[in-house]
Parts: sequence; structure tokens; C-alpha cells
Amino acid sequence: MNLSRASSILALGVAIAAGQAPVAAQSSIATRYRAPADSLIDAALKDSAAWNRLAKLTDTFGNRLSGSPSLERAIDWALAEMKADGLENVHAEPAMVTHWVRGEESLTLVSPRNAPLRMLGLGGSIATPKNGITAPVMVVGSFDELTSRAAEAKGKIVLFDVPFTTYGQTVRYRVGGASAAAKVGAVAALVRSVTPMSFRTPHTGNMRYDSTVAKIPTAAITVEDALMFRRMLGRGDKVVVTLKMNAQTLPPAPSRNVVGEIRGSEKPDEVVIVSGHFDSWDVGQGAMDDGGGAVAAWEAVRLMKQLGLRPRRTVRVVLWTNEENGGGGGRAYRDAHRDDAGRHLLAIESDNGVFKPRGVGFSGTDSAMAVIRQVATLLDRIGAGGVVPDGGGSDIEPMMQLGVPGMSPDVDESRYFWYHHTEADTMDKLDPHEVALCVATMAVMAYVVADLPAPLPHGAAAAAAQPR
Amino acid sequence: MNLSRASSILALGVAIAAGQAPVAAQSSIATRYRAPADSLIDAALKDSAAWNRLAKLTDTFGNRLSGSPSLERAIDWALAEMKADGLENVHAEPAMVTHWVRGEESLTLVSPRNAPLRMLGLGGSIATPKNGITAPVMVVGSFDELTSRAAEAKGKIVLFDVPFTTYGQTVRYRVGGASAAAKVGAVAALVRSVTPMSFRTPHTGNMRYDSTVAKIPTAAITVEDALMFRRMLGRGDKVVVTLKMNAQTLPPAPSRNVVGEIRGSEKPDEVVIVSGHFDSWDVGQGAMDDGGGAVAAWEAVRLMKQLGLRPRRTVRVVLWTNEENGGGGGRAYRDAHRDDAGRHLLAIESDNGVFKPRGVGFSGTDSAMAVIRQVATLLDRIGAGGVVPDGGGSDIEPMMQLGVPGMSPDVDESRYFWYHHTEADTMDKLDPHEVALCVATMAVMAYVVADLPAPLPHGAAAAAAQPR
Repeated sequence: MNLSRASSILALGVAIAAGQAPVAAQSSIATRYRAPADSLIDAALKDSAAWNRLAKLTDTFGNRLSGSPSLERAIDWALAEMKADGLENVHAEPAMVTHWVRGEESLTLVSPRNAPLRMLGLGGSIATPKNGITAPVMVVGSFDELTSRAAEAKGKIVLFDVPFTTYGQTVRYRVGGASAAAKVGAVAALVRSVTPMSFRTPHTGNMRYDSTVAKIPTAAITVEDALMFRRMLGRGDKVVVTLKMNAQTLPPAPSRNVVGEIRGSEKPDEVVIVSGHFDSWDVGQGAMDDGGGAVAAWEAVRLMKQLGLRPRRTVRVVLWTNEENGGGGGRAYRDAHRDDAGRHLLAIESDNGVFKPRGVGFSGTDSAMAVIRQVATLLDRIGAGGVVPDGGGSDIEPMMQLGVPGMSPDVDESRYFWYHHTEADTMDKLDPHEVALCVATMAVMAYVVADLPAPLPHGAAAAAAQPR
Repeated sequence: MNLSRASSILALGVAIAAGQAPVAAQSSIATRYRAPADSLIDAALKDSAAWNRLAKLTDTFGNRLSGSPSLERAIDWALAEMKADGLENVHAEPAMVTHWVRGEESLTLVSPRNAPLRMLGLGGSIATPKNGITAPVMVVGSFDELTSRAAEAKGKIVLFDVPFTTYGQTVRYRVGGASAAAKVGAVAALVRSVTPMSFRTPHTGNMRYDSTVAKIPTAAITVEDALMFRRMLGRGDKVVVTLKMNAQTLPPAPSRNVVGEIRGSEKPDEVVIVSGHFDSWDVGQGAMDDGGGAVAAWEAVRLMKQLGLRPRRTVRVVLWTNEENGGGGGRAYRDAHRDDAGRHLLAIESDNGVFKPRGVGFSGTDSAMAVIRQVATLLDRIGAGGVVPDGGGSDIEPMMQLGVPGMSPDVDESRYFWYHHTEADTMDKLDPHEVALCVATMAVMAYVVADLPAPLPHGAAAAAAQPR
């Protein structure tokens, strides 16, 4: 989460709009763009091309953690496929990425009875000693409770048993639990998986160490086992577990963002980004998070090519690397394109699952929002014409900090956190028609914004995106 | 499933009713039993005693497969607790049970890519050779498809990829898939887990070998991976897996049914059974299947004791052993009590999950059904007054074959097969109030039937129960 964005935005302001037609001239957007929008929607909905390509990706390469051979092989494949699609200027842009490897890991209940438990180490965690850490478990329901019971924590494994409310509220324990526990003398930290639904399913995800305290190993356990620990302690049983992890953080590894374009007919140096992240966690298949967003963005641009729709400005698909555990892809893009930030009209990222879209979230100035609301009416026929504030995504966040308006499909997220960062993030969780609706939504928004006579005004993005 | 039951029932017929008051005399059941029924319902709903006892059972002993130390330890505990509850004639009745042990097992995708897959060997399966079986996978959607493509099966691992419809329709592939595949030359059989919902969750369960063909190893895979195999083959990829299992069937082991009673005040030798099975599969905690049914039945009888309600006839709680993979508990009871079958008025078993009850299922004569409908009106106040045909359970099935009417709570099973025979069968899937409603339902039905002036007529049970 980055709270400093607002301050950096106004500087670029509406520079790009200088000398352009006023926004008011765009009042006929819905009329003007009905035909290309309908052709994009019809093409997106006529088959399951995006779902099928995503299945091919995830079945062939599996999950794609930064630093893994599977991610790099998938990137090679995407580059070749994108060229075969006829996209223009297809290339990779280098990015250095976090290289954390899970290794072998286990959690065993040793008291009050002996049983193997499900767990997933958290990304970035250090290893335990070779023979693991065996210690009593202390369960807390909040950081405040840990603080008030700090004297009990020394030598314990602290479990943060926090029921899912919102992702933002709950994920704090996954990200910061280890250091909070280390601060009061704990030897390891466990976190109840960040999810409202569990089939004994651990959810991994990133964590961060506070540099002022000792690093201790940390892992997610299932909702079921967190509740069991709490019950056992409530009965007066002593809960003891053995945690073994040999995770390692290796030196940063080279990776790549995949880029392809439809070059603009009039202003090829002005760009609309449409994107998703290609990397995933090292469990499941990364179909929902975020192969789906990446492939849907790609498909949106492929359909423009197929339909011969070439907007005035360039539409650029980016398949980001390293969203999950470092953000190296988004930062590398920002660093390479910093001088072009003023020529980036809009950045779209899909990273909330390619579920049924109600519309888009948008972060930008009020005048830009007014334009986007007009464009979005073109999606009313598929029920996706709504516009809500606070669009964005963690990979486009660095560009948004430079004043680029941000957008994301606003989808039905009701099942997103059921599967998020788990073995259950697989193709079958996505519906081909819903994926196609996301393709249509991104295709229409990207194409029309790239073709508008006047560029979308820059500046004043709203709330910062949160890593997903 | 046993289709020969009907023929064995009429023999005993209404023998027990000879010399008793006619059913018509029981028309005021609802009035006569309002007070004790209400006191049982109120006591059941006033706290979470059953849920808490079940949590204690499952947290303390974990899952409880026949032949395992955990089952026998849990049985020892139940005997002691039941005595402490003040139940009468608390004792164990011996039963020899199947002793299958899972051992180490794994399934690895080796083509078109390398990946570990989730699996659970099926109960009763033989082992693979030490180095496993590596073979191409052939996917079929039915026994008919296997027959029509029999020529392709030789040397293959056959996967039955059959979507869940009803348990009865779908479980046929788990039970009989291995022998059907062996018949056409397959070297192993996989079955898509029998469930309408999956979080990459394999579901184990029993299987049976046809004695006329070779035994081949067999395991369940997840819905997700079954769909993936089908997609891969659809693309022309060759799917190859390595299956390793070292499961063993050991000699039958001694186990026990747990029995406790409220002795009847007038006819202590006439009995109403209220029961559930205490064993489970060796995954999860066996909370829903069927610790919940067993503990709810136990609680129903404990409440009678606590309230000082002693019916005319004996109410007997039985916690069955070995429902899941052999039925040794139910058969041992039948063998030990065969001569008393005529004095068993009713057998109740809860094995469909202690979810919200709508009423009961009942298998018996029309005249018995008429009585049961009257008794059930006492449960109208908790929404559980419905009576539907075909009550029963696999442990009471042997006694039902001797003419004993059978009954089971008729519950909302919508989530039952989500968790059935999986690691996710844990306490949190059960709601304390719903468990209490099941306790109330069984307590009222058992108490009133045990106290009726005239015994419930025997005979003519309906459709046979299916092992769960």
C-alpha cells in the first residue's frame, strides 16, 4: 500500500491535455464508438478463446513464481504466441525479480496429539533450523491482543487467528505478523489463512520483515486448524507444534514483462496500457490470480488486431512479472518509461479475478472520470457500464504515482478470496463467458480511450492499490 | 446396497404387536407427549453440549479409521464418558473390523509436465509396486464409454471422470471402477472425487474388487485435475502419471460398538436404538461423517437421563464401529442380537451429517408410518416434523433386514458431499444449533416410540440404505 501517491500526481497534472479539444467535445462518445465497441463485444463473446488460451497456459506451465523456470518458459511462449497473433512491437522488457524458493516444509501437531497439519510458508520467510522449531502455540486475535499479552509470547509460536473481514484488514497479519511476534520474543509466527472459506486450504502470500527486529519463520495454517488450536487452548490443553521450513531468498533473478502493441495511427507515442500479471504463487495454477487477467488483457488487444481496429493512439498489452512478491515488473516498467509517463493516457490492470464485471473502477481527475463514464455506457449492453472510484492495480501503481490514470475491471469478487494463493486456483474456477465479458470490458475501454479525439486528462488518482 | 431385504421382512411381520393395544389407541400422541417432548427439545437447544463434546472427541482423537489406535482410544473414552453421564448398562460389544492402512502414497504428473498432484487412495485398494506405476492416462466419462473404448485401455491408467449427480449414481465409479478397468487390461484406476464442490480436495472412500478379475491399485484425484487431464488429452497431449501406493489390508482387527442405555421401566427387553457411527475415514477429523451423528445420538439419551425421563421400553445408544469400510459393527450387533430382533421396536441412525433437520426418514409398515407421523408432529415447533419414506443407515441395515423399522434424521444435505471423506471434514463445518436440532429430533422420536403404550409395528422396510 502506498499512501504517498496523491502528492506526486498533481505535478504532471493535465500537461498532456494542452492544446487538445476540450472534454465537452466528447459528449457523443456513445454514438461515435457504438460500432467498434459492439464489434469488440461481439467478438469477445462469440467463443471461449481467452478461457482456452488461459487453460493452455496454466495446463502447460502450471504455476509461475518469480525466479522459477516455469515463469520464464511461459514468458517465452507468450512472446511467440503474441507474435503469431500479429501484434506489433512484441518484445520483452527486463526486470529483476525477487527469487524466493519454498523448499520442503511441514507443520506437525505434537501436543495434545500427533498429527500432520496443512500449511504453506509465506513468501519471503526465512527457514527454520534443520530440525525445525518445536514450541508451544499462543493464539491471539489481533495485534492489540498480542501487545496486551506480550509477556506470554517469549519462546512461543504465535498464531494470529483473525477471521476474514476485508482483505485489507486481514492481510495485515500475514504481512506483518512475523515481525510483531518477533518483537515480543516469539520464535515463529503462524497466521490463519486470509479467506472467508476453507476446505482445509492454506493460503500463501507475501510477508515483510521489519528491519529493526529479528527475522523469524512464518507460515499460513488453515482456518480449520486455527479454530482447533483455539478450542484446545480453551480446554486447557497445551498446544505444541513443530514447524519445519527450508525456504530461501536467493539473489534477485532476471525476468521480463511481455509487451505487445497495436500501434496508434496518429499518435503512436501516446499509449493506453491494458494488462494483468503473468507471475503467480507457487501453488495451484495461477489461473484466477492472475493468468486470467493477463490473458484477458492480451485477448482484448488481439481482438482489435483481428477486427482491424487501429486506434489513433497505441494500445499496449503488458503481461507483468513479479506482482506477487516484489513488484519488480511494475517498477522496471516505470523506470524504463518514466520520461514517457505524460504520454501514458491510461493504465488498465485486471487482478481481481476475471469474474462477471459490473463495470470498471477508475482513478483519475473528475474531468477524466466524466469521460470514462461516457465510454462505459458502451458496456451497458453487457451489464458492465458502471464506473466506481479507486481503480488500479499493483503493477500499474508506479505509473499511477506519476499521474497516469488507473483502471481495473470491477468484478464480482465474492469467490476471489476462496481460491486466492491456494492449490485451488485452477481453471475450473473461471467461467468462459465471464472471462469473455472481462475481455470485452477491457477491449472497449482501451480502444475507445486510445481513439478519443482529445486525450484523457492526467492526474489526481485516488486511493492506492493494494498488492494482491 | 442390499436388494434382498424386502423378502426377509414379512416373516417377522407384526409378531411383536400380538396382544397389544391397536395403533388407533395412539391418536392422542401429540397431546400425551407434549410435555416430555418439549422438555427434551428445550434441553437440547439450551446450550452447545453436543457440539462441544464432538469437538472434544475430534480434537482429542482426530480421525478414527477401523483398526487404528485412535478409534480404539476414542472408544475407551466414550465408554468412560458414558458411564460418567450416568447411562445404564454401559458396555462394549465386540466386532471384528476391516484393517486397511493407507501408508505412503503419491501421484505425479510426468507428462506433459512434471507436477505433484493431490490424491487419496481408496479404501481396500492394493499397493502399487515399490517404484509405482507409470502409464498413460485414458479418460472415460462412464462405464459405457469404457466398454466402447475397451481396446484402448490395455496398459493404461483409466480415469473415470464422472461429474457428481447423486451420490448413488456417482459412487459406482469409486466402488467398481478398478475392476471395470482391470477387466479391459488397465494397470490402475483413478476416479474423479465424488463431490459437487472442490478446493483441489480429494475424497477417499471404499472400493470393492470383483473376484473374477485382477486387482489393480485405485485412488481418487481431484475434480480439478480430472478436468485438467481431459483438457490435456483434448489438445492432443499425452498424459502420463506415476501412481505410488503402499496400502495394505491387514488381518481383521478387534474393535467394539459402544452401548449405553436408559432401561425401560415396564418392558426393559424391548428396545429403541438411537445411533451413529464412531469410526471415520483416516482424513480430516470425521466430525460430520459421522462423529456428529454418534455424539448427537449419545446426547439424545444423555438428555433423557438428565431430565429423569425413563420410557416404558429401553432406549439404547449405539456408537457403531467400522461403518466406513466393512460394516463389521452393524453385522456383529445383528449376529449378537438376532434372537432379539423382534424386541427391537425401532432403530435410528444419523449418518447424513448433523445439519438442519426437516424431520425424519422412516422405513416400516404403513401402520407404523402412521404412528411415526403422529410422533413427528411433536417436532413441528423446531421445523422438524416432516416424515419421508426410506429412512435407515448402513449400520442398522442388518437389523432392518430382520424386520426392524429404520429411521434417520432428514437433514439439509446440501453441503454434505462437499466435505465427505476429506481433510475438510472438521468441526467448523457443523453449526452448534443445527447439531442441537438433530439431538432434539432423535431424542423426541426415540423417547416417545419407546414409551408408547403399544409397540411400533414391525416389518416392511422400504429401500435399502447405501453405505456412506
